[in-house]
Formats: sequence, C-alpha cells, structure tokens
Amino acid sequence: MSNPASSLEEAPPQETPLQAKWTYEPAGTRHLGIIDLGSNTARLVIFGYVPGQYFRIEDVVRERVRLSEGMGESGVLRAEPIKRALATLKLFKLHCDTEGVADIICVATAATRDAENGASFLARVQAETGLTPRILSGEEEAYYGYLAAVNSLTFGDGVVIDIGGGSVEITQVAERRLLRGQSLPLGAVRLTERFLKSDPVKKGEFNALVDYLRAQLGQVEGLGGAALVGMGGTIRALAKMDRASQNRPDHLHGHRLTRATVDRLVDQVRALPVARRSNLTGLSADRADVILGGAVGLQTIMALGGFDACTVSNQGIREGLFYERFLAPADPPLLDDIREFGVQNVMRLYGGNRGHFQRTRDLALSLFDQLTELHGYGQFERDVLGAAAWLHDVGVSVDYWEHHLHSAYIILNVPLPGWSPREIALIALLARNHRKGGISLEGLEGALEAGDADRVEQLASLLRLAEYLERGKTGVVEAVRVHQGSDWVQIEALTNGDASIEIWEANRNADLFHKAFARTVEIVEGVA
Amino acid sequence: MSNPASSLEEAPPQETPLQAKWTYEPAGTRHLGIIDLGSNTARLVIFGYVPGQYFRIEDVVRERVRLSEGMGESGVLRAEPIKRALATLKLFKLHCDTEGVADIICVATAATRDAENGASFLARVQAETGLTPRILSGEEEAYYGYLAAVNSLTFGDGVVIDIGGGSVEITQVAERRLLRGQSLPLGAVRLTERFLKSDPVKKGEFNALVDYLRAQLGQVEGLGGAALVGMGGTIRALAKMDRASQNRPDHLHGHRLTRATVDRLVDQVRALPVARRSNLTGLSADRADVILGGAVGLQTIMALGGFDACTVSNQGIREGLFYERFLAPADPPLLDDIREFGVQNVMRLYGGNRGHFQRTRDLALSLFDQLTELHGYGQFERDVLGAAAWLHDVGVSVDYWEHHLHSAYIILNVPLPGWSPREIALIALLARNHRKGGISLEGLEGALEAGDADRVEQLASLLRLAEYLERGKTGVVEAVRVHQGSDWVQIEALTNGDASIEIWEANRNADLFHKAFARTVEIVEGVA
Repeated sequence: MSNPASSLEEAPPQETPLQAKWTYEPAGTRHLGIIDLGSNTARLVIFGYVPGQYFRIEDVVRERVRLSEGMGESGVLRAEPIKRALATLKLFKLHCDTEGVADIICVATAATRDAENGASFLARVQAETGLTPRILSGEEEAYYGYLAAVNSLTFGDGVVIDIGGGSVEITQVAERRLLRGQSLPLGAVRLTERFLKSDPVKKGEFNALVDYLRAQLGQVEGLGGAALVGMGGTIRALAKMDRASQNRPDHLHGHRLTRATVDRLVDQVRALPVARRSNLTGLSADRADVILGGAVGLQTIMALGGFDACTVSNQGIREGLFYERFLAPADPPLLDDIREFGVQNVMRLYGGNRGHFQRTRDLALSLFDQLTELHGYGQFERDVLGAAAWLHDVGVSVDYWEHHLHSAYIILNVPLPGWSPREIALIALLARNHRKGGISLEGLEGALEAGDADRVEQLASLLRLAEYLERGKTGVVEAVRVHQGSDWVQIEALTNGDASIEIWEANRNADLFHKAFARTVEIVEGVA
Repeated sequence: MSNPASSLEEAPPQETPLQAKWTYEPAGTRHLGIIDLGSNTARLVIFGYVPGQYFRIEDVVRERVRLSEGMGESGVLRAEPIKRALATLKLFKLHCDTEGVADIICVATAATRDAENGASFLARVQAETGLTPRILSGEEEAYYGYLAAVNSLTFGDGVVIDIGGGSVEITQVAERRLLRGQSLPLGAVRLTERFLKSDPVKKGEFNALVDYLRAQLGQVEGLGGAALVGMGGTIRALAKMDRASQNRPDHLHGHRLTRATVDRLVDQVRALPVARRSNLTGLSADRADVILGGAVGLQTIMALGGFDACTVSNQGIREGLFYERFLAPADPPLLDDIREFGVQNVMRLYGGNRGHFQRTRDLALSLFDQLTELHGYGQFERDVLGAAAWLHDVGVSVDYWEHHLHSAYIILNVPLPGWSPREIALIALLARNHRKGGISLEGLEGALEAGDADRVEQLASLLRLAEYLERGKTGVVEAVRVHQGSDWVQIEALTNGDASIEIWEANRNADLFHKAFARTVEIVEGVA
C-alpha cells in the first residue's frame, strides 16, 4: 500500500526556484534584492513584499570588502580591493539567481563615486557579473538614508546622519520632509587611513583627527535641532557595545546613545590597540580598526549640534531604496503612520482571522472608552491595547498550545518600528495575559515604569472580556454598552443572535476585571 | 499624491473568507474541522494541511458541556446537558462557517453511544446545526486513539489508554499495529457520579471505587507490555500538575508520568474537597470534581499491567481522525518516520531556501561521518545535527536580526513529536550557536546530560563550517573531503566554481572547530 508520507522528499511538480520554497508569505509576495557596495562593507539584502502592504527581510549577506583600502587621497581603487569586490558581487548575483530573485537594485557609494577609475570598475562589474550598478551621488545617499529614518522612526524634525566607510551623509529634516542633504568625505575608513596610523593611536594623531573633524563639520549649516538620528556601521557598532554593557534586551533600532556614552566609548576604544578592541562585546574584529574614526565623527556632530543623544536607526540606504519601490508611485514615499503600519505588517505575515482580531479590538476599545472615568488612562494605553488586540494570536503560528507565550515572544522580537521598548513590553504582556489566570510580568519589569503592573492588569482584563465575547469568532456580539453603579459594572453585550456561550464564558472569566478594577462585573445580553 | 500605504485597511479584491486571511501557510493548504462531542467536553479543532506533507492546528475551541451529567445508569441524556450541547455545536458550526471551513467531521462518543435517546439527540443536532455527527463505537474510539499515539510517539509495542469522561479505551499494540482495542464504561465522570458522592470523598467510597476498577480492569486481557501511552483529559491534567510542581519547560506531549507520581497525585487530590482542588497548579476548575475517578483508573491500570510510567500523549481521537484523512488512502494510515516528519513539517511552515538547508545538512553530516574517529559520536548525535541543519534558520520568520535566538525559541516550542526534551534542547542549542562567537547554553542545562556542553560545541562547529561553505547559498561547494594529521585537520572543499569567499569565510570562522576538537583546521579548495 502506498503511503503518501513516503513521498515527503519529493518536490511538487513543475517547480520554479521560488515554488521550491514552501513559503509562508502572503500570496502575491514579490522579491527584490538590493546590493550596496560601500567603502567598507558590501551587502545584499533580499526583501519579500506586497506593494504598500507588507514586507520582510528574508536574507542578508554581508562581506567586508573594504573597497576603499589603500585609496588614500589618490582617488584610485586598488587591485586587491577590486578583486574582492568582484568576487563578492559575483557571489551576490549567483545567490539571487539561485533564490529566483530576478529584480535587483545595485548601488555603489563613496569609494566608487570618488574614484577616478570608478567608471571602469563598474564596467568590469557589469561585464563579469551581469549586475548594472548605479553610482549614488552624495545627495542621493543622504536622501535614501533620510527615507529610511523617517519611515522607521517617529520624529519629524532634526538631523539624520549616516557614518559609512568612505563618507558621512548629513540631512536636515523638517515636518518629515527633507530640507537639505549633503555628503562629506569623512567616513570611518578614510579618516582612519589618513589620521590614525599608529597602533595604539598616538595622542597627536587623535588630536589632529578631532581638529580636522571640528573644522570640516563646523562648516555644515543647520547642524542642530530636536532630534539626531544616526545610521551606518559605526553607529550600529557603538549601540551594540552600549547594549552589551547594559545587558539590554531591546532592539538596536531606536536605541538611544547618550552623549556621555559616546564619550565613554571613544575613550575606551582609543586606549586599546586594535587587536584588543574586539574583546569589547559588540565590536566585531571587522570593524575594530576603523571604529574610532567614525565614533569621533559622531562625537563631534553631537557636540557641534548640541545633541544630548543619538537615536540609532538599524535601517539605512538599503531600506531607503526599498521604500522608494515599496511605496511607489508616492512622492515622497512616506508611510502615513509607521506605528500602525508596523502592527499591520506583522499581522499580515502571521495571518489568522483578521475579522476576529478587528472585532476583538473594537470591543476592547469600546470597553476602554466607556470606562475612561474608571481607569483614567489615555491615548498611550489605548494604543497599546489596540495593538495587543491585533497581535495577541500571532503565537498560534508556533503552536496552538501555550500560544499566549509564543505571541509574547514574537511581539518582543519582531520589528515594530516606532514603538518604544516600554510599549512593546506592554503589548507583549497583554498578549501573554489574554487568556486566563493571574497576571505574569515575565521578567520584563526592567522595561516597565511605575504603575505598569496595574496597567497590564486593567488593560488585560478588558482584552480578556473582549476575547470571550468573540469566543466563537462569529461576530455575534456586535457592540457593548457599559453601565456603572457605585461599586459595580454592567456590560450589555448587544447581539445579533444566540450569544449564550459567549456571555456565559465572559462572566465565568470576569475575575480579572473584578480584581483589576475592584468592581463586580456582570455581562448580560442585549439586542443590537 | 496618492500613497498606497493609505489603502492598508482595504482587503484585496474578490475575497473569500479564506483569502481574507493573509495566511502564511504553504500554497494549497486545505482546512478540516473536527468536532468531538465527548461525555465531559466538546471540542472543535481546525487543521490546516497539505495531504501527506504538512499540517498544523490552527484553532481550538473547547467547551465543558458535561453531556453525561445526570445520566447515572439510566442511559438517558438529560435536558440541560442536551441544551448545552446543542448551543455548543451551533457555535462550533457557525465558527467553521465564519472561518470558511466547509469540511467538517463530527463524532460523538460514549455518552451518546450508550444513551437510549442518543439517536433522537443526534437527529436534533442535525436538524438544528446542519452537522451530521457519527457515533463512534467503542472499538472505533480505541482505534483513533491508537492512530494518534503511533503517529506521534516512538513506541512500537505496548498499551494505549484513553481515559475520557464516559469511557476508557484500551488498545494493545505490537510493531505499531493494533492487535486488540476495546472500550469500557469506566470514564471519569461516570465513576465520579457512581462512587464519589461525598465531598470530601469518604474512605469507603474511595475503596469501593478501587475495588470496582480492579475487578473490571482485571478482566482485560494482555494488559502489560513494553510501554504505556495515555491520553484524554484526566491524564493531561495529571501531567500538567506534575510539570507545574517540577517547573519543567518541556512539552506535555511525551511527558513521563511515573507510578510514584500518579500515586502521590491521587493521594493529594483525594484529601481535598473539590473547591480547594483547583488551587493545585495545573488542575482547572472544570476538571477538579472528576479527576479522581480518572486518576484511580490510571493508577489501577499501571498496577495491574506492571507499568513504571505512562507516557502522555497530547494527541487523541481528534488527531486520529485527522491522520486517517491526512494519510489517505494509506491503510493503516501510519507515518513512516515520525521524527523526520516532524522536522519536515516545521520546515514546510517556515519555508526558506530548502536547497540551501539540504546542502548545509549534507556538508555537515559528511564532516560528521568523516570525523567519527575524532569525535566518537553515533546515531543520536548525527540525528540531532541533521535536524539542526534543517531547522536552524526558522527564526528568520520572526526577524532576520538575531535569528539564531528566534530559531532556538521556535525549536523549543513548536511540536516535534518523537524527539525527547534533551534532543530538542540540543537541536535548539545548535541553532542558537550556528553563526559566530562562543557557545551559549541558554539556561537549558536542566534538559541536558553530562558531556552535552562538549557535544554542542563540537556539533555546532561542524554546522558552522557547513554553513560558511554554503554562505552564498549557491551550492558551489558540492562536497568535502577530510584529511587528518596528528594534530591538524584539512578539509578539502570540492567546488564547481569560484568558492573563494566561502572558503575564506570558513577559515576565518574555524576557531570554534579548533577549540572544540583541539586541532587546527585548514579549509582548502579542491575540484568536484
């Protein structure tokens, strides 16, 4: 007798490379490869996306090409770096071919831009790899960094900087629009090769670097403002070092690097010979030699601009190039509401019954609104509750059993740009506690603030009631009307059919509400 | 200017309910709802599946109908339980309708089977809900429980028991085939109503129950063997109570309930009045009154059969019914290799580049095989390494960044039937450590045995090398040939093209191998 299970290893018929992947993406997902040949590293990022609706990073390959090595002030790309770059780009192209990604954007930045043999290098790239790279001008580099920042962080006014291997881009932003962007040849590799020739760094070399940066950056107009956002390898490395020392579980993206921290890290790195720097947690051997050049650049910008902190963006020109495609034909290509988009993006990946989540959310927010006098919360808590209503079942994808735990893990780890670590912890805790039993804070106390245990309890009790009123996922409870007495609450469930089980279950599980609000609660049936 | 992002909330055109779910399932996934109307609880489970290849539980709704309440020995279903059952089944049907699940299997077991008004009850079910329930005979109940057990646990010989509310099924299994299955009217609700009428339970009542069970179960032929597998609500509850007291992180499925534990739990529950029993962690209020009747049944079977332990199955007749459909037309519907199926099943959900995983696995296992004299490991370790090669990137679904951590979480939490807690911890640790840096054991030491830290280090070093040799995901390294000296190892990478980057990266990241095996290692190019 044939057992279908014995054919497990056979691929479905007529498979293309993409079909060979049993994927879990939404239907109609497209794929785009973005290759960025920088002065220090070359990166390939493969995005899966549905235009305007959903996207995810599927794969990243990063190689330390150090294309600008040995350029000095000559403006000439040297033979060995060119050889490495060509081998890397061939690998990236072959990788895309193997994965069935035909749509590729390839850009080259400072080193290639400034090289007198840049054009011939790119001609070789085209001939030997089939890729057609586009050189980004300094202003374009600044533009794409800006796009990434404004589409992934909630700030509207300030300065965006990108410290790369060859160049530094500085962009002024007002009301989320780009005012002015420029590129300066002050990248980490370039400065290291020019100024920091000894190992360990000599005091005189260091001072010469500082003076040079002050002079160059001092000429930048409008260097100041409400917020400083930083991206690029140097800044990501500094953030990793900071997070490692604090043992923080939160995301790199959105991390705040204070001025005091940057000063401390500069002093720490400066005192060590290169070989010992990579002992510092968060600093890879790849970057240990050049980080000082970049870090002093950041330090100088913060001092000149009067910035107390730099918010780190994990997204950079690759994401900027992606957003341009993703939101086309919008101009400028800006997401209206990055926080809402982030939540919807996660939901689109994890799927499930969207109607149920919508109805649960509507009921929960209705309870929230009608009970405002009782809880006294505002928009902050309402946003958290709404997001939790959308996301509380994403963990079913791991396993139905204990899915509240899996949902909490996913919420804590999935990209949710624009939400603070505290908000993400609260949303995760509402998901963790949406089913039954007492409240657990899951070891997340470090991300919370005073009063948040009560917040979790009260908001979770509303989410729980909403969830039970939607137990059958049929929409039988269309709305809720809240009545209050001195020490009691009555919730009228307005139904369009027989909701006896929903109401019975809601009453049976009203204990958390009772504990959270110190009110007895009765859920009764009404007619919609 | 129009911004596509503003149309986020709009559903794609021409949506059916299923398309309304932006799902992450493999293309061609079907959906099946299975409704099980037991004597104690009624359950709806919705499966998503691709026949023979992949499946997942998408949703579960459980209601405590207590259909057999008040039946006594009358054989008559009473009015209130019937009313509850009809309301519940209507909710289940409406739930399936709302989710677009048209394919429904509905079965009824002991209470309905034994009732003189069972047929008229089912006629009402059909008339009022549209469901067409099928009464399972005792032998069929035993058969489906057996199917679930042999398709989800690695045992070939022994006894499978299912302790439900109305009946207990006992099945003898030899070489994974069903020898003999029967159903006895000894379910937890039935015995409680007949024997345990006082609260707290009187000594005389308890002894009468024990004597009755010994007499009834003593008549069962062939009650003994290599393994005892148990399923059903009572056994799951006992396992939850045991796990809670040990603070164990591992899965319910596959949990071993020792005889000493069962005896202890019986004594513990017996001493408490019903109202205080649900203070015991793991015991829900729903079950507190009837658990003793079921637990004494398990205790008696273990004593009569000479079983030291009972392995808990989280899967039961619902999964058995599902496997019959899933593996059709196979007869009997048995998975060939449940461990391999489990791994493939997880991979099919999480997708990714299957060819890359296959090649990484082939390289890792080739290194393992060629280095056997050096590490001295066997099939156990080889299986763990192979599974880790398949699953190490599942975490990319959560976020590309830090995906090794997400992979470890998923592996620890996703259903992987047939793998022991120690194996799952080892696989998760290989995924956790497949990229770079030193070995982390992630707080999983409790699941490991002596020597496992070395195992993780050595196996992870092989996985890491294989991963780097597949860095471009292009298959350029087709095979590896290992040469050994007294204190060195040379790995010849047999390539079909330019693998300079793969080999360079492998050499750069060979430090873990060096540490793990106390050998220097060089990776060189050869021609395939």
